[in-house]
Amino acid sequence: MKNLFFKKKNNIRINDILTLLKIKKQKENIKIKNISELDQAMKNDISFFHSINYLDKLKKSKSNLILTSKRYSQHIPKNKKIIVVKNILLSVAKITSLFYPDALDDIFDKSLEPVKTKLFKKLNVGRNVLLGKNIRIGKNCSIGHNTIIEKNVYISDDCQIGCNVILKNCIIGKNTHILDGAIVGKKGFGFFPGKLKNIRYPHIGTVVIGNNVEIGCNNTIDRGSLSNTVIGDGTFLDNQVHIAHNVKIGKNCIVTGQVGFAGSSIIGNNVMIGGQAGISGHLTIGDNVQIGGGSGVIKNIPSNTKVMGYPAKNIRNFLKENKLNE
Amino acid sequence: MKNLFFKKKNNIRINDILTLLKIKKQKENIKIKNISELDQAMKNDISFFHSINYLDKLKKSKSNLILTSKRYSQHIPKNKKIIVVKNILLSVAKITSLFYPDALDDIFDKSLEPVKTKLFKKLNVGRNVLLGKNIRIGKNCSIGHNTIIEKNVYISDDCQIGCNVILKNCIIGKNTHILDGAIVGKKGFGFFPGKLKNIRYPHIGTVVIGNNVEIGCNNTIDRGSLSNTVIGDGTFLDNQVHIAHNVKIGKNCIVTGQVGFAGSSIIGNNVMIGGQAGISGHLTIGDNVQIGGGSGVIKNIPSNTKVMGYPAKNIRNFLKENKLNE
Amino acid sequence: MKNLFFKKKNNIRINDILTLLKIKKQKENIKIKNISELDQAMKNDISFFHSINYLDKLKKSKSNLILTSKRYSQHIPKNKKIIVVKNILLSVAKITSLFYPDALDDIFDKSLEPVKTKLFKKLNVGRNVLLGKNIRIGKNCSIGHNTIIEKNVYISDDCQIGCNVILKNCIIGKNTHILDGAIVGKKGFGFFPGKLKNIRYPHIGTVVIGNNVEIGCNNTIDRGSLSNTVIGDGTFLDNQVHIAHNVKIGKNCIVTGQVGFAGSSIIGNNVMIGGQAGISGHLTIGDNVQIGGGSGVIKNIPSNTKVMGYPAKNIRNFLKENKLNE
Repeated sequence: MKNLFFKKKNNIRINDILTLLKIKKQKENIKIKNISELDQAMKNDISFFHSINYLDKLKKSKSNLILTSKRYSQHIPKNKKIIVVKNILLSVAKITSLFYPDALDDIFDKSLEPVKTKLFKKLNVGRNVLLGKNIRIGKNCSIGHNTIIEKNVYISDDCQIGCNVILKNCIIGKNTHILDGAIVGKKGFGFFPGKLKNIRYPHIGTVVIGNNVEIGCNNTIDRGSLSNTVIGDGTFLDNQVHIAHNVKIGKNCIVTGQVGFAGSSIIGNNVMIGGQAGISGHLTIGDNVQIGGGSGVIKNIPSNTKVMGYPAKNIRNFLKENKLNE
Repeated sequence: MKNLFFKKKNNIRINDILTLLKIKKQKENIKIKNISELDQAMKNDISFFHSINYLDKLKKSKSNLILTSKRYSQHIPKNKKIIVVKNILLSVAKITSLFYPDALDDIFDKSLEPVKTKLFKKLNVGRNVLLGKNIRIGKNCSIGHNTIIEKNVYISDDCQIGCNVILKNCIIGKNTHILDGAIVGKKGFGFFPGKLKNIRYPHIGTVVIGNNVEIGCNNTIDRGSLSNTVIGDGTFLDNQVHIAHNVKIGKNCIVTGQVGFAGSSIIGNNVMIGGQAGISGHLTIGDNVQIGGGSGVIKNIPSNTKVMGYPAKNIRNFLKENKLNE
Repeated sequence: MKNLFFKKKNNIRINDILTLLKIKKQKENIKIKNISELDQAMKNDISFFHSINYLDKLKKSKSNLILTSKRYSQHIPKNKKIIVVKNILLSVAKITSLFYPDALDDIFDKSLEPVKTKLFKKLNVGRNVLLGKNIRIGKNCSIGHNTIIEKNVYISDDCQIGCNVILKNCIIGKNTHILDGAIVGKKGFGFFPGKLKNIRYPHIGTVVIGNNVEIGCNNTIDRGSLSNTVIGDGTFLDNQVHIAHNVKIGKNCIVTGQVGFAGSSIIGNNVMIGGQAGISGHLTIGDNVQIGGGSGVIKNIPSNTKVMGYPAKNIRNFLKENKLNE
């Protein structure tokens, strides 16, 4: 899949990657087109396998070149080439930086200029609004005072962007409202803790927000590392919600104040989440799930389930254990 | 009670309401003055009864016209007229929009202009401060850089408003401090989840902040839907506190960092709340209550009680159960 | 230790202090140089003893004049003078205000002016950036749009400050990133609840941030009251983290989204804290500690320990009690 916002280097060959990882070069220096997750990789992309949870995706992956560690190498199908490294994710970060040298840092966009309303159709714009490069804004949108739209933002028709908002690297559907003070599209909190210094990894993902969505005040929504952070159509987020990189929230969800999502969790449709609940990373929450306020979710939740508690459990058990079921 | 900030339509008659709700018109097309909660409604206002918790208020209400559902209709006193609907709150939202057509949306205030200090007495004002219409500012106030005061804000004497603050639809008492980045008076997170699309309901309430109050950095305080959101005299809020619509906090309360209040809860006087505690919606917390940090309060708490835990319980039980009472 | 940012009065004598506290004057009206915590006080400073936890520091303190209450007066070494008061901390606040009359209030810095880039080496600066007095900025720094740097800020080389950031009273090490919307250096949430009115106490501390640190979006980090708030080298904070006054975080820590620290806790090196965890005040957390997401830490934690839960306990016990150890 073409990356809309981050520029990819096109002449990477396998020996560039092997050199970077301090591994012996190969004879046949084949061209590698991209680095991608298992389910999105094409034939000539390099992908990676770092958890048994992704065994299904590994089997179905179109990638012919898999980065993994000794421990997981037995699972790689025979017809794929393998690169074995000690630290898979650190190697992924290095290779991603090789393909996308600009995605590592998140320095402010100096190209910003005061908005020229003539360039947009029926744009209702406040004072001191700044726009960067590669911005598209649909019809009948409004942008509040002091809002900063850095490079790589596509906004569809009928959207309302509040005041003091900061947007970058995001795609926003129709009739979506982004309320005051929200910060959308900065790099995620991803890095490798080093004994001498933390190593940041590049975030080449986007924040993709659907139609009829509401993003509350002072929300922080980080863009994805390799894949995108996604907020589905009709989903409403209250104030002070935090959404980490790669999280994918379904349609028509209701997320109340101060809820937090750790990275890479997948939330179904019609999910309701009470205030201050926290969702751990890399979980799968089904459709029509209800999560009580204050809950701490640390396991997957099947569809059509109500949970509450820390750790979150079936709400009947929570109420019974706390003698609240009278 | 007259609504100071949202303009009410004055020629609404009962058949306008019945038509809106797709109910058969009545012969006597009486005038309806307003839509109000049970305890604030006057004789010619329409009110509504949607929970057995409000039975007392129903009995005392001056309203002669009550909107309710079949289930609750038996409780309505004989001397009052009834309109029976399937979804009470959705009907309330529709009727409120009929009376207050401007209160639904929260688009940024385009009328804002740079502050003219000559209009105010001893106003100490930063750079890039914007003011909307219907603003009153008392003596000896200060307003920090980049702060946006949209329409409908009354600020009393000796107040300090920080930098990057956004205010709208609020009334602020004397000697109150609003710290950097706080957002006060936006519409609450209230809507009816629809299968096709969420229906927002109008927020015609105000945020009423008392004297000698401190509102911390990056706080979000939403205005009420029908009634007001209230912060009592002498109450101090730390950073990153979230207060949803209709919450009423008493006097001299101390609310530490990252605490969240869901909608419509009523908090007494001299209440102390530890960091990250959460208060569910529609609760009543008495006077002199102490709530430990991290607690999740899901039941009413009587006055003079100390609670802690999730769900919050008497602190002695919490300590005993967790073997912390040594 | 000299206070870099708050101006100290130099002619305070013991009878000025006694008069302030409404205590009988002494014959020998000795000069008092400063008010300091036990471990930082010099010979001619006044210090205070208000908790048995600080007995060790009391014994080692160089101060010859200790403020305390009747209850604790027996612990004061014979060779030190004692001032006995009813409310120790309230008296400390009054004396601090006597030495530092400017540290009480946190009104916005009116001296701010648009940045003059000529004054700094290779400064990459956005639009509408405001700078106050007593600002130092090292080489190769960048400051994003709408950022406000009030007085008393020292920034070292190679730092990246984002957009909409507010800094004051802080010292920032090399190669540190402060992300969009962060607020660093405002006074802490410290005051004495009074029946008539809360009494604020002065905050004469600084926020000291090390090298290679990352401060996340919308973080709030308050400056210390008497001592400093400290973030060690290489520590990374995610979005929406709240750090109260006097907290000291060690080196190479990882603090994920929405974590909160109450005042005066001391965190070791290489500590990892999961999302939404809360750390109570006045605690000591050792080195290499791991705190699970959502935990509520209310006791000290020894080094090399993993904890989780509310209240936080050894993670093995948490998993066992919640039948999660399969």
